[in-house]
Amino acid sequence: MPPREAYDWLRNHCMETARLESTISLLHWDQGTNIPAAGHNHRAEQIAALTRVVHARRTDERIGEALESCVPLELADGPESDLAANLRGWRREFTRASRIPANLAVAIARTASEGESAWERLRPENNWAAFLPYLDELVKLRREEAEAVGYESEPYDALLDEYEPGETTASITPLFAELKRTTVSLLDRILGSGKEPKIALVGRRYPLADQERLVRHVIRTLGFDFTGGRMDTTVHPFCTRIGPGDIRITTRYREDDFAESFFGAIHECGHALYSQGLPGAHFGTPCGRSASLGIHESQSRMWENMVARSRGFWVHFLPLASYALDSLRGIGTDAFHFAVNTVQPGLIRTDADEVTYNLHILLRFDLELALLRGDLRAADIPDAWNEGMRELLGLTPPDHASGAMQDVHWASGLIGYFPTYALGNIYAAQFMETIRAGIGNPDAMFARGEFAPLLDWLRTNIHSRAARQTPREIVRAVTGQDPTPAPLAAHLARKYETLYGLRPSA
Amino acid sequence: MPPREAYDWLRNHCMETARLESTISLLHWDQGTNIPAAGHNHRAEQIAALTRVVHARRTDERIGEALESCVPLELADGPESDLAANLRGWRREFTRASRIPANLAVAIARTASEGESAWERLRPENNWAAFLPYLDELVKLRREEAEAVGYESEPYDALLDEYEPGETTASITPLFAELKRTTVSLLDRILGSGKEPKIALVGRRYPLADQERLVRHVIRTLGFDFTGGRMDTTVHPFCTRIGPGDIRITTRYREDDFAESFFGAIHECGHALYSQGLPGAHFGTPCGRSASLGIHESQSRMWENMVARSRGFWVHFLPLASYALDSLRGIGTDAFHFAVNTVQPGLIRTDADEVTYNLHILLRFDLELALLRGDLRAADIPDAWNEGMRELLGLTPPDHASGAMQDVHWASGLIGYFPTYALGNIYAAQFMETIRAGIGNPDAMFARGEFAPLLDWLRTNIHSRAARQTPREIVRAVTGQDPTPAPLAAHLARKYETLYGLRPSA
Repeated sequence: MPPREAYDWLRNHCMETARLESTISLLHWDQGTNIPAAGHNHRAEQIAALTRVVHARRTDERIGEALESCVPLELADGPESDLAANLRGWRREFTRASRIPANLAVAIARTASEGESAWERLRPENNWAAFLPYLDELVKLRREEAEAVGYESEPYDALLDEYEPGETTASITPLFAELKRTTVSLLDRILGSGKEPKIALVGRRYPLADQERLVRHVIRTLGFDFTGGRMDTTVHPFCTRIGPGDIRITTRYREDDFAESFFGAIHECGHALYSQGLPGAHFGTPCGRSASLGIHESQSRMWENMVARSRGFWVHFLPLASYALDSLRGIGTDAFHFAVNTVQPGLIRTDADEVTYNLHILLRFDLELALLRGDLRAADIPDAWNEGMRELLGLTPPDHASGAMQDVHWASGLIGYFPTYALGNIYAAQFMETIRAGIGNPDAMFARGEFAPLLDWLRTNIHSRAARQTPREIVRAVTGQDPTPAPLAAHLARKYETLYGLRPSA
Repeated sequence: MPPREAYDWLRNHCMETARLESTISLLHWDQGTNIPAAGHNHRAEQIAALTRVVHARRTDERIGEALESCVPLELADGPESDLAANLRGWRREFTRASRIPANLAVAIARTASEGESAWERLRPENNWAAFLPYLDELVKLRREEAEAVGYESEPYDALLDEYEPGETTASITPLFAELKRTTVSLLDRILGSGKEPKIALVGRRYPLADQERLVRHVIRTLGFDFTGGRMDTTVHPFCTRIGPGDIRITTRYREDDFAESFFGAIHECGHALYSQGLPGAHFGTPCGRSASLGIHESQSRMWENMVARSRGFWVHFLPLASYALDSLRGIGTDAFHFAVNTVQPGLIRTDADEVTYNLHILLRFDLELALLRGDLRAADIPDAWNEGMRELLGLTPPDHASGAMQDVHWASGLIGYFPTYALGNIYAAQFMETIRAGIGNPDAMFARGEFAPLLDWLRTNIHSRAARQTPREIVRAVTGQDPTPAPLAAHLARKYETLYGLRPSA
């Protein structure tokens, strides 16, 4: 096929696949928000049927031939072109997909689906023994996948690369080691300060409708466009992009806890703002999709922690929040700001504060790496988990449900995914440092209720890049540095030294 | 392929296609209930992509080969078997699909989609001239389709058969002629009675939340299962089956009109009860799907008119409704019953009462038949329409929006669809006559709040048959008669003679 014709075919083929795949997103969204109780079986069948269609399209042999035919165009247009970015993305995807034997792909999909159902059932029963066979099988299958996909030195890299293109065990291990060192040291100083917030936010009464009204107002103020999106309630909150002009946040509310609901919604809003900032005209191509899970998480964590947990944010919003929610009346800004930034080692990752959160990730990364290297058997995870928790946070989980069974990820076969959460925090701090240097003190802007400058900066510098570059290339292009944990360490030190009245570290 | 293997392949292939098609139903439902304003373009792309997948699967040549291979099984199992019913259904579908050239199918789909959009825009502007080219093209394309599909004596039959399998111009023309005769005669007597309801329901104030609460309670009482379904609000109400265990009603509320919202919801509930009664285990095969549009409509119209507009129904529900809605307080049962059964010739089909409704259908049938025969050009529809309206209802539409442009059907290419509405009314009355003979006076049951016997009867006699038989075979098996308008004429005469104080006709 002539190069231009091959490129057009490829583009149409991949865009059509993306349209079909985005339909699976709607099936999932509806399952999390609307589906009647008796509809789940059929929904699983619908998702499976569409997944088969998408998988067949992704592994269509004609993609390989078309990619070959396009090489002259790529050379002519140069590596900075949209065309080259798309071809890189499609080649990456197709190479990976075509290396995984069809029966392995099917086995992983089926076992992941069974594993997730088993986890839903067995976690509340704290039944590790019954869960282990699923996990064991998934580790085995994903090790097979790593062998099939190929890697240079670490099988783990073949999985990590799926979620964070271009990153490897070798590239992230030093970042994580440094992050661990600075975090453990800061945590020690915080716990040694003897200081505690003066007020508790949990246990007051926050009517659900009032919370929802407030959250809707806040995310609209931050820049979420409701003409191109929705917000609904669910059990396990998420954000999904059905397509350009259709970005959906889900959240949940607790009558007795304002903070969990509020910051959860802002987190999803951060994801949504990224999705709304992706170039809609390029939907279905690498020039129109998010760069990686880590870059996605950098956006959600930035809005959640660096914006909504900043002092400036509450200078602006606390008067309004205490009007919206009676239970917040009479709380001062400093007391409130301290209350939503309390550091407290805990067992559950998703409940963790900004400081201890990364330690939860580092533990999971160590275990995953050991599993893939064959240094750890799935059966030995709980012991290794508990040992890690003691070392990092000084806690021992009383049961599996609040220990190694707390997350759905491994049950769904997602190994190599957790590091992207910590990478997201690292990237976010690097971006924030650049933003501070570029457009001034964010905290002062937030205190004046100005969020558009930040969003504009993110739109220009991050969102509009889509997946034209790898995460590392984006970080380098935007901040002038490779990924580094120093800005995150500096951000945490600055913030928590002030809150906990610590003497600045050297 | 050996027969058994061929059958299993066919069954799996068709069930998978049905799963994919049911995903289109969710895309439509979401578009009618949830989609953000900016999401429509992508939604159209999603629906188009999935439609292409479904169409390719439906015309897959292997279906023809597999059907051939199954003939020995069909002979062995006999025509009453599930296997034979499925093969009949699949053969019917495949024969039709494979006779329509791919480029014609694409042209119809594209023009129908454009026609529907044009109608949405042009109807409010009353712009017939701009709408005509779409209609003209659709009539031309569907005439081509009729030629491609084939027919014995009337091209119209090739279209009608898609919606009401087995029915033809010759089979329904005498039914409609008789229906017209008895309806026009009854209407004359009603209009000559000088009698009018004493109260008006329109113009009072019915808070939306109170209406919704009442409707939810009523449809639950009638038998709608909310664990296997939902009810939401939309602009153009519909009922859709996402799959077994997931049947969704949509409705709308008017603050100043209780009846339109209420009976609209009961109509959709009638469709939903049928869908909930289809054998879920056979989803995706003829043994698990509805028999025809006419049979579907027989269910919706029965619940709407023969149940919810009966006197017994309001003996039971008016006390509750007047508690739920302040505006209904103090109205007597007879006055209320008369108010919700007022006969009044009008321009709009969807607003028509039970008596005049069928005349709207007969007009459309006559015009469609003339279009397909080539006796009428699309350009001449408005004149023919207005002439028909004068003859049947004594009215002349002041504009196209309330005349020939009022329905979306033709704009979407749906020609041959309207007769199924009148057939539904005919079937419903035949079923009701059989029910009366079998389980006693329905009105007395409704007055006692007993709706389960009716639903049980419908489940056993109609719903569970699915599409194992043609509509005519179902009517014959259930009532012992071919479709006939006599029971409908008798039902209308009995009901409206009482309401309007008419002397019983001979």
